[in-house]
Formats: sequence, C-alpha cells, structure tokens
Amino acid sequence: MVGGDAAGMSAASQARRLNHDLEIVAFERGTYVSYSACGEPYYIGGLVESLDRLVARTPEQFAKRDIEVHTRHEVTAIDLGRREVTVVDLAANSSRTVGFDHLMVSTGSRPLRPSYIKGVNLPGVVGLRTLDDAAAVKQLIDGDVKKVLVLGGGYIGIEVAEAIVDRGIEVIMVTSGRHVLERTLDDELGTLVDEAVRSYGVELHTGLRVQCIQGTDRATGIGCDEIEFSADLIVIGLGAGPEVELAKAAGIQLGDSGAVAVDEYQRTSVEGVWSAGDCAEVRHRVTGKPVNVPLGTVANKTGRIAGTNIAAAINGTDPKPFPGALGTAITKIGDTEIARTGFKVAQSREAGFTPVVGAVTGTTTAGYWPTAKRMDLMVIADQKTGRVVGGQIVGGQGAGKKIDVIATAIWNGMTAEELAWVDLAYAPPFSGVWDLVHIAARRAAEG
Amino acid sequence: MVGGDAAGMSAASQARRLNHDLEIVAFERGTYVSYSACGEPYYIGGLVESLDRLVARTPEQFAKRDIEVHTRHEVTAIDLGRREVTVVDLAANSSRTVGFDHLMVSTGSRPLRPSYIKGVNLPGVVGLRTLDDAAAVKQLIDGDVKKVLVLGGGYIGIEVAEAIVDRGIEVIMVTSGRHVLERTLDDELGTLVDEAVRSYGVELHTGLRVQCIQGTDRATGIGCDEIEFSADLIVIGLGAGPEVELAKAAGIQLGDSGAVAVDEYQRTSVEGVWSAGDCAEVRHRVTGKPVNVPLGTVANKTGRIAGTNIAAAINGTDPKPFPGALGTAITKIGDTEIARTGFKVAQSREAGFTPVVGAVTGTTTAGYWPTAKRMDLMVIADQKTGRVVGGQIVGGQGAGKKIDVIATAIWNGMTAEELAWVDLAYAPPFSGVWDLVHIAARRAAEG
Repeated sequence: MVGGDAAGMSAASQARRLNHDLEIVAFERGTYVSYSACGEPYYIGGLVESLDRLVARTPEQFAKRDIEVHTRHEVTAIDLGRREVTVVDLAANSSRTVGFDHLMVSTGSRPLRPSYIKGVNLPGVVGLRTLDDAAAVKQLIDGDVKKVLVLGGGYIGIEVAEAIVDRGIEVIMVTSGRHVLERTLDDELGTLVDEAVRSYGVELHTGLRVQCIQGTDRATGIGCDEIEFSADLIVIGLGAGPEVELAKAAGIQLGDSGAVAVDEYQRTSVEGVWSAGDCAEVRHRVTGKPVNVPLGTVANKTGRIAGTNIAAAINGTDPKPFPGALGTAITKIGDTEIARTGFKVAQSREAGFTPVVGAVTGTTTAGYWPTAKRMDLMVIADQKTGRVVGGQIVGGQGAGKKIDVIATAIWNGMTAEELAWVDLAYAPPFSGVWDLVHIAARRAAEG
Repeated sequence: MVGGDAAGMSAASQARRLNHDLEIVAFERGTYVSYSACGEPYYIGGLVESLDRLVARTPEQFAKRDIEVHTRHEVTAIDLGRREVTVVDLAANSSRTVGFDHLMVSTGSRPLRPSYIKGVNLPGVVGLRTLDDAAAVKQLIDGDVKKVLVLGGGYIGIEVAEAIVDRGIEVIMVTSGRHVLERTLDDELGTLVDEAVRSYGVELHTGLRVQCIQGTDRATGIGCDEIEFSADLIVIGLGAGPEVELAKAAGIQLGDSGAVAVDEYQRTSVEGVWSAGDCAEVRHRVTGKPVNVPLGTVANKTGRIAGTNIAAAINGTDPKPFPGALGTAITKIGDTEIARTGFKVAQSREAGFTPVVGAVTGTTTAGYWPTAKRMDLMVIADQKTGRVVGGQIVGGQGAGKKIDVIATAIWNGMTAEELAWVDLAYAPPFSGVWDLVHIAARRAAEG
C-alpha cells in the first residue's frame, strides 16, 4: 500500500479479512493513517478536541490484525520491472527498496496551488489535506491570527471558514465562481449558500479571480489589480488534484481526468498494480464513464473493492466490480445544510442529457411545525428518458440527508415520475405528507 | 366524494386538474375537510396553536377551484341501482338525495373500541380521528385533568402521550404488546422505544390486556382483575379500523382485510364507484397483495390516483395504477426518532420470505461529533433472493428519515448487497463515512 488513508487502509483491512496469510505492508509519508480528513475543519474550529479523535485506527491497531504500517515513510519510486518500491524513512533519513507481488497506489490528492497565482507558495499560504496540515493550521489559528483569507468557495473552503468564524476570527472568502460551490450546485441553490455563508459572518466576495498573493518572506494578503485584502493567514481551498506523480513516473497509465486509469475492479494498466481513492478514476454510475471523484466515501468504497480484488487474485476467487459513484456530497454552514448528487444542469447537458428541472421551495417539516425552516430542493431529470440524473438541496436542519433518497433513485435508474410515488415516511416533525422529493420529482416529470 | 379528508379531497383536486367541466361535490360529516390528522397530537400538546393551522384547504378555497364542499353533511346510504346517495344535513337535520355518475368512497377509518373491553363506550373514553375529536380532547385537557390513561402503544398512543406530558399532566400508558409499536417494530428496537417513552416521563405498562373500564356515568379508570389505575381521562389508541359500514350496506365488496376491495386503479367491485384512503385496500409493493395501510401518505397518494382515474374514465384517457405501499412510517417521542418500512421479521416470514437481519448500533453523526446520539438500525432481507424487505430505525435527531433510503431500496427491489454500495452523502455532522444503512445492509447480505 502506497498511502495509508481511506483507500489504502480499507484495501489492507479487506484483503486481510479475505486472506489471513497475506503479508501486507503500508507506507504513509504523514504521521497518521486511516483518519477522517473530513473532520479536520472541525478540529480547527474546536468542535473536535483532539486529532486522535479523527483517527479511525492507529498503526498499533493495524499491527494487531497483522498489517504492517510505516508512517513517516515516503515511497519515492516504483520500479515495475523489478517489482519493488523505494521507500524513504523520513525520520531516519534513510532509504531502502521493498519488493511486492501486488501494489496498491493510494496516494490520495493534494490541494491545488495554481501557478497563475503569484506568491501561492509563500509561507503563510496553507492547504488542508492531512492531519499534519490540520495540526499546522490549528497551531497558527491558536496563535495571534486576527484575519484569515480563504481562497476558494468549495466544500473545504466553506467548512474552514465556518470553523474559523467559530474561533471568533475575521474571515474573508474569495471565489472566482458566480457563487460558492459553483462546481457542484446550480445558481439558484448556490446563491442561497452565499446568503448562508454571509449570514454566518463571513465576508464573501464572488466572481473575483485572485492573481497574486502579496508578501515577501510571508504572505500578508492578496491583491494586484483593484482588489486588495490583508490577512494574517491564507487558506487555499481551490480544489484538489489527484496525487499521481509517482504513478506517472513509473509508467502507470493516467486517464483523461488526470487520475490513475483503472477498470471497475480497480486494476491499473499494469498487472498486479491497483489504485483507488482520490488518486484514481472511478466509473460514474449514470454514464459509466471514468471520472475523478475525490470524496472520502468513494475512497473507502473503492479501497474496499481493491482489497477484495487483490485477495481474489491471490485466492483465485471472483473479483467484484465497483458499482459506480454519483458524487453525492453534503456539508453545512451554521444551520444551513447543503447536499447534492449526480449531475447539475450544465453537467447533465455535457453528459448528453436534456435536463428538465423540478424545483420546490418548502419547509424542512410540516409548514405548521414550530421549528419549520426553509428548504429548497431540485430534481434534475432527462427529458427523453425521464430518468433522474441529479439533485440538490439547501435548507435547515434535516434537509441535507434527503439527498440520499434522490441518490438511491438515480442509482436505480428511476424516472422522476416513479420517484414521485415512492412510499416515504411522513410525520409533521419530519416533512409534509408529500415529501419535497415527491413534489420536485413530480415537477421534473411534468417538465 | 363521500368523506372530505386526505383521500377524498386529493381525488377531488386531481380530478379538477384533469377535467375543468366536471361537477364535483364532497360531503363530510365533520366540521373540517382536508386536514392533517397527524398534526392533532401536537395541537393537543400546544405545539400547534390553532386547529386552522392543521387545515390544508378550507371549503372556501375548494369553492374557488369549483369543488363544492358540504361539511356537517353525512352520507347515510348509497343506492347503487339509482346511482344516488342519501345525505343528512346535520346542522339543519334535513335529508335529501343526490345523484352521481362516479362515486368516491373515502370514509377513512375509526379508532377501534373493542367490545371485549367493558365500559369502552363510557363518556370520558375518547378516540382521536377528526379535528373535531382533537378539539374535544384539547378542551378536556385544558380543563381540570390531572391524570390521563392512554390505552394502546401505537403511533397515536405515543404521540398523544408525548403531547400530554408536554402539558405537564401525568400519563399512564398501557399496552397488551410486549413493547410499544409491537405491530410495526421487532422486539430489539421496540424495547428501545419503551425506554424512550419511559424517559420522557410516561408510566408505561406493557403486556397488560385491559378488560374493563371503570365508572358509572363517566370513566374513572381501568381495572377488573389485579390491575387498577384511576384517571380523569382515557384516550384509546388501539388501532384504527376502516370505516366501511356505508360501503358494505350498499353491497360494495370488501377485501380480506375488512377494507373496501379495489384494484390498482382504485376501482371497487362496482362500475363507477371508487375508493381510496384508510377505508380501502392497497397493493403491497413487495408482495403485490391487498392490504389495508391506514396512513396519511397512502391516503393522499391513492386519492390522487382515484382522481386521476375518475377523470381518465370521463376523458377517455389511460388510467394510472397505484404503484404500491410499503407502510413506511415515522414518529418521535422527545428526541428519539422511530421509523420503519416494509415487513418486520415475523411479517416477512408470513409473506413467504426467509428473513435475515442486519442490525447495527451506531451514532447519528460521526462518532467524534459532539452531538452524536445513539442510533439503531435494522435491514431485513430475504435469504433466498437477497432482496431487502424491511427496515427499522430508532435513534436521536436525524436518525428517522434515513428510513427513506431503505424504503427506496425496497421499492426498487434492491438486494442488501446492492444497498451496501449506494453512493450516500457523508460529512461528519451527518453520518459516518459508511452510513449505518450501508453497514446494516452489508450484515444482512452476509447473513
């Protein structure tokens, strides 16, 4: 295993379950393995008290299951001819080679630092990926930071902004998008999230493409043209790219998305070399086409599939295909929950569909329930086939996880008309007698 | 329309949408039409301030859509030969006959008052069905009531008990079941609900079959044998039976469940006579067999189907079948949410399946999230086919509506193995990276 987070350690655990004799070794260049990267903003914000709470399993726990884990060990080269990797022990600063029969590339992703931004690599410009990153950011925040600039309006940007506001620190967020979460939400719902971000106390600037970061020894803010903001710390959340340098250098084939190309069994172009998680492609459930979906859910699932299939290759049993990803995701800022699945309108058009949108503004509970909060929900269907291809939700407490019903509908190839009749649960504290999913699906069905 | 609540008025509205010329008349013996019966306990408890808030549409609003509504008008006979009904104006105490081309029987249900309970019809023993009932109970509670006895541990019993505790009144609940919600939950989860009911301050007695209600002019408590409880008011929640006397007297065929027999188009045994809602049967989504599912969700959906098909019969268009019911339901007591769908273990056996249970105890959010609450979830699958046939949930805030994912899975005939891989949304405030639905489904799949 090269890389010991979600995909790598899921694969290791699953391979162990299916084969007790296999020798399994994992190398992780960071200090921690098997951790919840999604929990990092909440550690920074103080909701989660210690980094240890974000660790699902320690190297010691893996050792008990006879899985050998080496942290602070970086694999620097893969030699496919000799079937060995070069590993650097970062603490000892020594290097050795280790042979393999099967190799799992689970190197994850890295925060993008676009080269068009001058000064993007200055000290004081931090990204968030590993627990070590989170520890570093937390330490800075705990120090004398009065103003933080968040570059980017994606999931991580929003979650970090929320966390830092929770610490009583001023936050300015700048995104080049028309609204936050532009890649995953359509404008109608995205602008609602803008409102939520602002209500939470974040100074949000949309449609602003940052060209340079100011500072000499250390970043002090942004601004070259008319825009200028000073800050004690800059957090970049401009998306993540698959960490593929190692695989690429070894000659493992990459896909069009830039991630490692794999088939539905997580097999790369090289026999006995597997890949899963943020660094690899997956099949989209709707189109069957390879895409890169850097989400923890997908990393855990594809890792488990890789582990199943490594064991299957050794045990001589049938491999299991990964059944696909929809990019279902959820987050929140304050009391506003945000969720999405499948394609947004423009994406569904690119995928060859003719999108029809069924949108509804309603409440999280029966309208007369005292804690009813506004909730907006969209179902996107293909006009030709009627099939549901996407869904988006923004609303108060209880709104977000309704996305799972739409995801399950897409998963099963349901039409919007069919979705409008599913027997969903109702009681006044939970929804209207027709769930908003029903109403939006009906509207999408009626086009 | 005979009966003007969910099914009747959904049918009326839908028929009007599809045919603008149709003459539509609805008779309702109560004071209100188109109301949320499910909201009644919350009116009694004071969470919902006025009965008007529970009314979706008033007769005046229906009149604007050219639907004639007569409240306090009871249909006392149906003459199928003459195609007319006898209607009594309860206010004027006068009677007349009204002809029809199509007749919709939507008489709903009535709270069961089992004759084996001596004194069950004494004053001071109240049931809850219509808004008029709710008004009457509220008035009693607002008066000098210090102790209330709730007979029955079903949904209504639990919701009424919660409401009355909220009013600061002592509540004793007695059920003959091994635990509350015995008809819809298996023992493992049902006993968790018992705990929640007790924690909320209700004095709960299970396994106690009440034989008689004491009192001469008015109920004063229960007890004949060893058990004896006094009370100022007795609320019965011993289930509901379909209100079919009128249909039966007219010669409309009933099904084995005792409800009006209908096909999937909501057609009764008599041409041009339709039925939907609590008084009618529906097809179970899993078995295709007729069952009686007295839930507001089903009433609204079957009512809409009846309205579609009445209009279709007149317009000469294709009728639409009702796609089935799963009996998905949800309720809460205090902060504990309770939900279920499909068959429980014994029911799935009766339906010819070999049940395998996948059960998990986890948390409503990531385990490290500060508001994480315990959550128990069961997925029931058929061993032979792997198909999911049921699901149950008991847990803290956010737990209940996850049942919709299981319901959507059953709806689509998914196997437990398939359900274990669906791309559901994850973030630490909402679930673990593997949702409890995934984990329970996996356990059911692995049998």
